[in-house]
Amino acid sequence: MKKLEDYVVSIPDFPKPGIIFRDVTGVVGDPEGFRLSIRTLEDLIGDTDYDLVAGLEARGFLFGAPIAADQGKGFVPVRKKGKLPRATIRESYALEYGTAEIEIHKDAVKPGQRVVIVDDLIATGGSAEAAIKLVERLGGKVVKLVFLIELAGLKGRERLADYDVESAIVYGGK
Amino acid sequence: MKKLEDYVVSIPDFPKPGIIFRDVTGVVGDPEGFRLSIRTLEDLIGDTDYDLVAGLEARGFLFGAPIAADQGKGFVPVRKKGKLPRATIRESYALEYGTAEIEIHKDAVKPGQRVVIVDDLIATGGSAEAAIKLVERLGGKVVKLVFLIELAGLKGRERLADYDVESAIVYGGK
Repeated sequence: MKKLEDYVVSIPDFPKPGIIFRDVTGVVGDPEGFRLSIRTLEDLIGDTDYDLVAGLEARGFLFGAPIAADQGKGFVPVRKKGKLPRATIRESYALEYGTAEIEIHKDAVKPGQRVVIVDDLIATGGSAEAAIKLVERLGGKVVKLVFLIELAGLKGRERLADYDVESAIVYGGK
Repeated sequence: MKKLEDYVVSIPDFPKPGIIFRDVTGVVGDPEGFRLSIRTLEDLIGDTDYDLVAGLEARGFLFGAPIAADQGKGFVPVRKKGKLPRATIRESYALEYGTAEIEIHKDAVKPGQRVVIVDDLIATGGSAEAAIKLVERLGGKVVKLVFLIELAGLKGRERLADYDVESAIVYGGK
C-alpha cells in the first residue's frame, strides 16, 4: 500500500538551485492519496475541541476545506491582500526577499472561538505565525496547527513553540 | 431552517458601483452553511460518472476539494499563471479589462478521464470555458460543471451551451 509521502512529488532545484519543492498536487490528484491525507490530518487533530478551521490561500484550502466540511466546522479563508470583499485585518510576514501580507475578515472569528490552522506545508513558520496573529487579534484561540508537510531544517516548529504543531510528513532538509 | 442563499453575503457596489458582489465566505464559515453547500453541489452532480474534480483557484478549491475528498475522487487545481511547479498547459480568457491566464499540470488529466468542473460562481463563463479547454487539450471529457452561484444576467450558461451546467443559487442580475 502506498504511504502518504509516496504521493508527494519532489522537484529538485525548484524554484531555484538547492531547493527541493514538495508538490502536493500528486496527493490531491489521486483519490486514495487525497483521502489518506485528509484522514491523516484529521487524526492529527484528534479529539481537539474546536469550532473553526482556518486555511491559508491557496494550498491550505485544499486540505482545510475538506476537513471542515467533513467534521462539521466552519472554514475561514486566510487570503492574500485585497482578495476578501468585506472589512479585514492584515498581518505581514517576511519572505526571502520582501514581505507578504495576509488578511481575514473581521467577523470571521468571534471572541472565544477555537481555531485549528491548516496548511499544506510549514517551512520557516512565517505565514503560520501571521495567521495566528490574525486569529488572536479577533479574540480567537489557536488550539492546533496541522501541516501535511514539515521542512524541519527551517525550524518553523521552534518559531511556533508556544503552540500545538503537528505535521503528517517531515523532511529533514529545506 | 436557513436556506443556502441565506448564507451568501451580498455586497452592493463592490468592487465598483452597480455591481453586487456575492460573497461565499459566509457559506463556508458556517458549519451548517458549508455542509449544505457541499451536499447541494453533490446532489447537482448526482449520479454523473466521473473520475476527477477540477476546481478553479482559489474559491473553487473551497467547494471542489471537499466534494472530491468526500466522493473519493482526485482533485485537479486549475491555477493562476506561474503557481504550478511542473510542466503545464495554459489558456487565457477575457476580463472586463485585459486578460487572465490559468494553467493545469500536463499530467493532471489522463486521456479519457471524466471531469467535473467546480467553481463558486459563474458570471460570463470565461474562466469556466478556459478550464474546459485545458481539460479537453489533455484528452479529458468535461461531463458536468457545477457552480454554487450563477449570475444569470451575464449569460455564462449560453456560452457553455454544449455542456451540462448546474448551479445551486441563481441571481437574475449581474
